[in-house]
Amino acid sequence: MTNVVVRNIRRADRAVIETLRDLGVSTTHEAMGRLGLMKTYMRPIYAGAQIAGSAVTVLAQPGDNWMLHVAIEQVKPGDVLVVAVTADNTDGMFGDLLATSLKARGGVGLIIDAGCRDVRTLTEMKFPVWSRAISAKGTVKATLGSVNIPVVCAGALVHPGDVIVADDDGVVVTPRADAEKTAAAGRKREAGEEDKRRRLASGELGLDMYDMRGALAKAGLVYRDEPEA
Amino acid sequence: MTNVVVRNIRRADRAVIETLRDLGVSTTHEAMGRLGLMKTYMRPIYAGAQIAGSAVTVLAQPGDNWMLHVAIEQVKPGDVLVVAVTADNTDGMFGDLLATSLKARGGVGLIIDAGCRDVRTLTEMKFPVWSRAISAKGTVKATLGSVNIPVVCAGALVHPGDVIVADDDGVVVTPRADAEKTAAAGRKREAGEEDKRRRLASGELGLDMYDMRGALAKAGLVYRDEPEA
Amino acid sequence: MTNVVVRNIRRADRAVIETLRDLGVSTTHEAMGRLGLMKTYMRPIYAGAQIAGSAVTVLAQPGDNWMLHVAIEQVKPGDVLVVAVTADNTDGMFGDLLATSLKARGGVGLIIDAGCRDVRTLTEMKFPVWSRAISAKGTVKATLGSVNIPVVCAGALVHPGDVIVADDDGVVVTPRADAEKTAAAGRKREAGEEDKRRRLASGELGLDMYDMRGALAKAGLVYRDEPEA
Amino acid sequence: MTNVVVRNIRRADRAVIETLRDLGVSTTHEAMGRLGLMKTYMRPIYAGAQIAGSAVTVLAQPGDNWMLHVAIEQVKPGDVLVVAVTADNTDGMFGDLLATSLKARGGVGLIIDAGCRDVRTLTEMKFPVWSRAISAKGTVKATLGSVNIPVVCAGALVHPGDVIVADDDGVVVTPRADAEKTAAAGRKREAGEEDKRRRLASGELGLDMYDMRGALAKAGLVYRDEPEA
Amino acid sequence: MTNVVVRNIRRADRAVIETLRDLGVSTTHEAMGRLGLMKTYMRPIYAGAQIAGSAVTVLAQPGDNWMLHVAIEQVKPGDVLVVAVTADNTDGMFGDLLATSLKARGGVGLIIDAGCRDVRTLTEMKFPVWSRAISAKGTVKATLGSVNIPVVCAGALVHPGDVIVADDDGVVVTPRADAEKTAAAGRKREAGEEDKRRRLASGELGLDMYDMRGALAKAGLVYRDEPEA
Amino acid sequence: MTNVVVRNIRRADRAVIETLRDLGVSTTHEAMGRLGLMKTYMRPIYAGAQIAGSAVTVLAQPGDNWMLHVAIEQVKPGDVLVVAVTADNTDGMFGDLLATSLKARGGVGLIIDAGCRDVRTLTEMKFPVWSRAISAKGTVKATLGSVNIPVVCAGALVHPGDVIVADDDGVVVTPRADAEKTAAAGRKREAGEEDKRRRLASGELGLDMYDMRGALAKAGLVYRDEPEA
Repeated sequence: MTNVVVRNIRRADRAVIETLRDLGVSTTHEAMGRLGLMKTYMRPIYAGAQIAGSAVTVLAQPGDNWMLHVAIEQVKPGDVLVVAVTADNTDGMFGDLLATSLKARGGVGLIIDAGCRDVRTLTEMKFPVWSRAISAKGTVKATLGSVNIPVVCAGALVHPGDVIVADDDGVVVTPRADAEKTAAAGRKREAGEEDKRRRLASGELGLDMYDMRGALAKAGLVYRDEPEA
Repeated sequence: MTNVVVRNIRRADRAVIETLRDLGVSTTHEAMGRLGLMKTYMRPIYAGAQIAGSAVTVLAQPGDNWMLHVAIEQVKPGDVLVVAVTADNTDGMFGDLLATSLKARGGVGLIIDAGCRDVRTLTEMKFPVWSRAISAKGTVKATLGSVNIPVVCAGALVHPGDVIVADDDGVVVTPRADAEKTAAAGRKREAGEEDKRRRLASGELGLDMYDMRGALAKAGLVYRDEPEA
Repeated sequence: MTNVVVRNIRRADRAVIETLRDLGVSTTHEAMGRLGLMKTYMRPIYAGAQIAGSAVTVLAQPGDNWMLHVAIEQVKPGDVLVVAVTADNTDGMFGDLLATSLKARGGVGLIIDAGCRDVRTLTEMKFPVWSRAISAKGTVKATLGSVNIPVVCAGALVHPGDVIVADDDGVVVTPRADAEKTAAAGRKREAGEEDKRRRLASGELGLDMYDMRGALAKAGLVYRDEPEA
Repeated sequence: MTNVVVRNIRRADRAVIETLRDLGVSTTHEAMGRLGLMKTYMRPIYAGAQIAGSAVTVLAQPGDNWMLHVAIEQVKPGDVLVVAVTADNTDGMFGDLLATSLKARGGVGLIIDAGCRDVRTLTEMKFPVWSRAISAKGTVKATLGSVNIPVVCAGALVHPGDVIVADDDGVVVTPRADAEKTAAAGRKREAGEEDKRRRLASGELGLDMYDMRGALAKAGLVYRDEPEA
Repeated sequence: MTNVVVRNIRRADRAVIETLRDLGVSTTHEAMGRLGLMKTYMRPIYAGAQIAGSAVTVLAQPGDNWMLHVAIEQVKPGDVLVVAVTADNTDGMFGDLLATSLKARGGVGLIIDAGCRDVRTLTEMKFPVWSRAISAKGTVKATLGSVNIPVVCAGALVHPGDVIVADDDGVVVTPRADAEKTAAAGRKREAGEEDKRRRLASGELGLDMYDMRGALAKAGLVYRDEPEA
Repeated sequence: MTNVVVRNIRRADRAVIETLRDLGVSTTHEAMGRLGLMKTYMRPIYAGAQIAGSAVTVLAQPGDNWMLHVAIEQVKPGDVLVVAVTADNTDGMFGDLLATSLKARGGVGLIIDAGCRDVRTLTEMKFPVWSRAISAKGTVKATLGSVNIPVVCAGALVHPGDVIVADDDGVVVTPRADAEKTAAAGRKREAGEEDKRRRLASGELGLDMYDMRGALAKAGLVYRDEPEA
C-alpha cells in the first residue's frame, strides 16, 4: 500500500458549514437521519466548545505523530484535523506545539481517536480537541501513514472534505455532498423545536403535544392505581 | 408481560427527603449500612448539583424514549425520574425538550442508565442529569415499556417512591420505608464528623483519634526504619 | 508475608521536586525517556491542579482504608500519598476527613488506584486527588497492608521517596535517584520548546522546522492532487 | 441493616424447572417477554452446560466468601447458588472446595457476579459456574452479608426461589410466580420453531415465511441494482 | 436518508477467495500492508473455524434484526453476512433460525458487531459466527436499515463484495479490487515463512536469521552481565 | 535511559519451580499471602496448560516486537518469556515463528501484556500463551527496549529470574528469593486441603468444619424463617 498525501481536496460551502456549527451535533445527527456519529468515548477536553469545519484526514500509526506534521501543511482556514490510527491507542499524539502550529494555519479543532496532552495549555489557548483519552505518553516520528484518504475514526467513516461538527454532545460527520440538504433539514427541525419548547415549558405534556395517547393504548399500555397499603 | 403505568405512588415525607439531600450521597449511603449505590459509571453532566426526590421509575427499551413522555405525566413537584433500560445502551434518550417538560412538571433531576444529550443546554438550564454516557444518538418511539414498576437501574433496585439522592459522588437509593431512619442515622453521623474534622485539622492522627494502635499491633503490623544507604 | 511500615524514607531534593512540578507531567515523562506514566484512567477530580512531591506508598486491601490512617503518620510536608490496592477496585477509600488529616500533616495530594469520595468538598478544600473512580462506596478497617514498600500503582512501579508529578495530563513517577538529571533534562527540553512555539505560531511548518521533508520522501511518501470531480 | 439468613424459602415446581432447563436461556427469555437476563459479561467457565434450579441468594462483600459457607447450608437438591456483591469485584470467591461442598448438598451450579477459581478442577468435576471473571485472587472471611434476600446480580433482580436458567447463551431469571406460565409459553414457542426451522432449511426465506414484504415496502424500503462498473 | 437494498453486487474471483481463506487472517492482513482488521473484540463463538467469502453488508438498528431477513435473500453460495449497527449494542440479533436460513442459501458465516445467541446449536451446526458478544437478548423487527451499502463494522470499512477472511485470530477485510494482489502477496509471504520456520526450529536465532545485530548495536543496545549477588 | 540486555540472570531451583507448577496459580498465590497476581484480563489461548519457569523479562514498545528476538537469545530451557509494553496495546506481537524459535530454545511459555496471533497454530504446537488479547495486528521492528530488567506486566512487578506460574486461573509471580518458602507453604496448604475436600464431599458443612457458627453469631447474623404466603 502506498502512503499518500492528497492535496486540493474539495470542501463544502462555508455558509453551510456555519449553519451546521450553529445547529450543533444532536440536531445535525437527527437531520442526517440519525447517522454519522462517532463513538461516545470521544469527549471534549473542555466544556462549551462548538465547532464545524472541513475534514483534513490523517491515518497514523499508534504512538507516531509524524503524519500530523505532514497534514498540517494541507490545512486551510476553517478546517478540522481528523486523526484515525491503525490500532486502538491512547498515546498523547497531540500537544501544545502541534496545536500552536495547527491554529496558526487556521485549523479550528482536532478530532483524534487516540490521546491528547498539554490539556491545560490547550484549554488556555481555547483550542478544542475531542479525543478518546488524555495521556502524557510521548510519541515517535518513525512510520508513514496517509493524509486525506478516507478513514474510519471512532467508528465513523470520514472522507476528506466531509463536514465535522463537534460540541459537548460528541462528534458527527456529514458527507460533503449531503451538507447542504442536512443544513436545510436541520434548520427546519430547529424551527419546529422552538414552538415545542415553549409549549412544554408551559406544562403541556408530550403525550398531548405529539398526540401519543391513541398509539399507546393501541399498543396495549395499561394504567392502574397503586393499591392502598 | 403487560406494560403498565402505575399512578398514585406513595412518596416519602418531604422534610425527610430534604434532609437526605443535605446529607448527600456518601453520608446517606453510610447511614444505610453501605447499601443502595448505583454503579460508579453514573456521572453528573455538570459538577456541583445535589438533589433528592421521590423516584418515578421507567423501564424503557434501549434507544426508545416513548415511555419517558408517558412517565412525565406521573411526575409531581420534587420527583426524580429514574430510567432503566432492558439492555446496555448509551443512546441519547433525553435532551432539552424532555428536560423542559420534566422541569415544567416540577421534576428536579434525571437518573438514566443510558445516554443524555443537549448537555450544554441542560447545563445552562441547571437541570441536573446523572447518566452512563453523553451521546447525540437519536431515539425512536416504537415499543412500550412500563412506568412506576420496580426497576434495576445501574445495578441498584429502585421501587417507585424510593428516595433518590444524587450529587458529585454518584447516586444512592433509599427505600421509602427506610428513609426516615436513614435520615436520622445520617444526621447523627454528620454530627460526629464535625468534631472529628476539627481534631484532624489540628493535626491529631486518625491512629490516635480512632484508637487504632492496639488493634494494628495485635493484627501484626511491624514498624521498621529504612536502613542507611 | 509480614505487613510493615517503613519509617524515615529518603526523599529527593526539594528544589528538584519543585522543578519537576513546574515542568509538569508531559515534559517530565519526556525527560525520563518516555517512561514512568501511570495508566490514563487516573484522572484528577478537578481541573487545573499541578503538584509534585515525595511518594509515601501504601499497599491496601480493596475496600479497606485502614492503612491510609497508618500512612498519614509517615507523611511529611510536601509528600504525596500513593495508594495501590491488591485487586481492581473502585470503592471510595478516601474522603474529606482523611483529606483534612493528610492536609494537616502537609500532604499535597493523593494518588489512588481506587475510588475517592466527597469530591465537592475536596474541590472546595483545593485538595487534589487523582483516582480511577469517584465512588461513595464506604470502606472497612479490617485487614493490614503495608506502608512505604515498593508498589505497583495504576501500572507504574513506585518506590517510597520517588517523585510523583501530577497534573491534568495524568501522573508520572520519577525514581528518586533520577530526579535531578530528569529535572535538568526537562529544563533543557522546555528551553528548546519556547523557540519552537514562537516559530510555529508565526506559521512556520513543523515539516520545515524539524527538516522532515527528506526523511518523508526517503520513506516513500507520495503527494498527489485529488482529481477533478 | 440487620444481616439475615432466611430459611425455608418457597421453590417452583420441579417439573416446571426441568421444562425451563430444557427450553434453555434464549427461549425462556423470549417466553418472559424479553426480560430477566443478566448482563452478557456473565460467562460459563466451560461450554455445554445447561441447568435450571431454584435460587438460593447471597449478598456478599467483595473479596469475602464467608456468606457462601452460610448459604450452602440452605441449599436443597436442585438449587442454584446466586451470589451478588456490594461493589464491582472480580476476586476468586469460589473454588473447588466450595464446589465440592455445594455439590454434596445437591447444588447444581453457581452464578456469581465476581470471580471464580480452580476452573480446571471445576471443569473436571463438571460443576458449572457462570461468573464475570476467572481469578485466583484469594478472599477473606471477615464481614457479614445476607442469605435469601432479594439481590441484584449482574443487573438482574433475583428473589430467593426464583428459577435460574443458565446455558452457553447466559443466565436468565424467572420469578417463581411466573415460572409455570413461562414454561407453557416457552413450549408453545418451541413447537412453532420446529416447523419454521424445517421450512428455512429447505430454502424458504424469512421474508416470505413471516410475510414481511408488504411491511417493508410500506416502511419505505427501496431495492435497486448496482450500476455496472 | 433512503433505506435501500442493493442487488447484484460484484464479487471477487472464487479462487482468489479460497486462497485468502487458506492464508488466514494474520497473513492476509500482513499482505495488505497491515490494514483492514476489525477490532479485537470480535471473537469466534467456537475455535477452529476458518472462512473467507464475499461480504453482503447490513446496516441494522441495534436490537432490531428485520434487515437480516432482507439481507439473506441477497446471499449467494460462498457469501459472508456482515452486520453493522448504528450504535454500540450486544443484543442477540442472530440465532439458530437465521443460521438455518443463511446456511440454506449458501452463506458460510456471519460477522456481527453485536450479539449472537443459540451458540450451542450454532456450534453443533458448525455455522461459524464472529461477534462482539454472546447474548440471549431478543430483538424486534421494527425499523428499516440498508443492505449492501458501505458500512463500518467493528472499526473496519466494508464495501459489499469485499472479501472477508475470519479465523481464530479475528476478522480482516480485503477490498474486492485488492483481493488478487493480496492473495499473491500472501502466497509469497507464506512461502518465505516455511524456510524461516524450519531454521528457527533448528535453533537458529531470529537475531542471526534476520541479521539484526548490527542494527541493534547502531540503535544503541547495550549488553551487560548481572553482577554476582 | 540506556536500553540494556542483562545476561546471566539467576534462577530459582528447578525442583522448586516444578513444585510451584504442580501447585498451580491459586495455591501459589495463597501461599504467598495473596500477592503477586497479574490482572484477570490475562487469559490463556487454550484451556488446560499449566506451567512454571524462570522469567526472562522484556520491556517492549507497543506494536514493536524487535526486543522479543533479542530476548530469545537469553532464554534457557525451562524459562518463561514475560513481555511488558510501555503503553496499553493489543497488537499481535507474537506468532508461530517466534513460538517456534522460543520453543527451540527451551522456552515453556509466553506471558504478554499485549496481543498474540496464529493462535490455532500455537494451540496445535501446544505452546501456551497468556495474553490480554488475540489480534492479527502486525508489528514493526523499529525501537529498542530492554531485556531482563524489572518490568510491570499486567499490574504485577516481575524481576528477571522470578518464578512465573500460569494455568487456567491466571498468572502469578513469585520472587526468586521467596520461591522455596512459597513452595513449602503451598505443599503444606495442599496437604490440608485433601482432608477438607473429603469431608466436604461427604456432606459436612464448611460452617462446622471451620467452626464458624460462633463467630457468625457474634458478628450479629440472624436466622429467620420465611413467613407463610
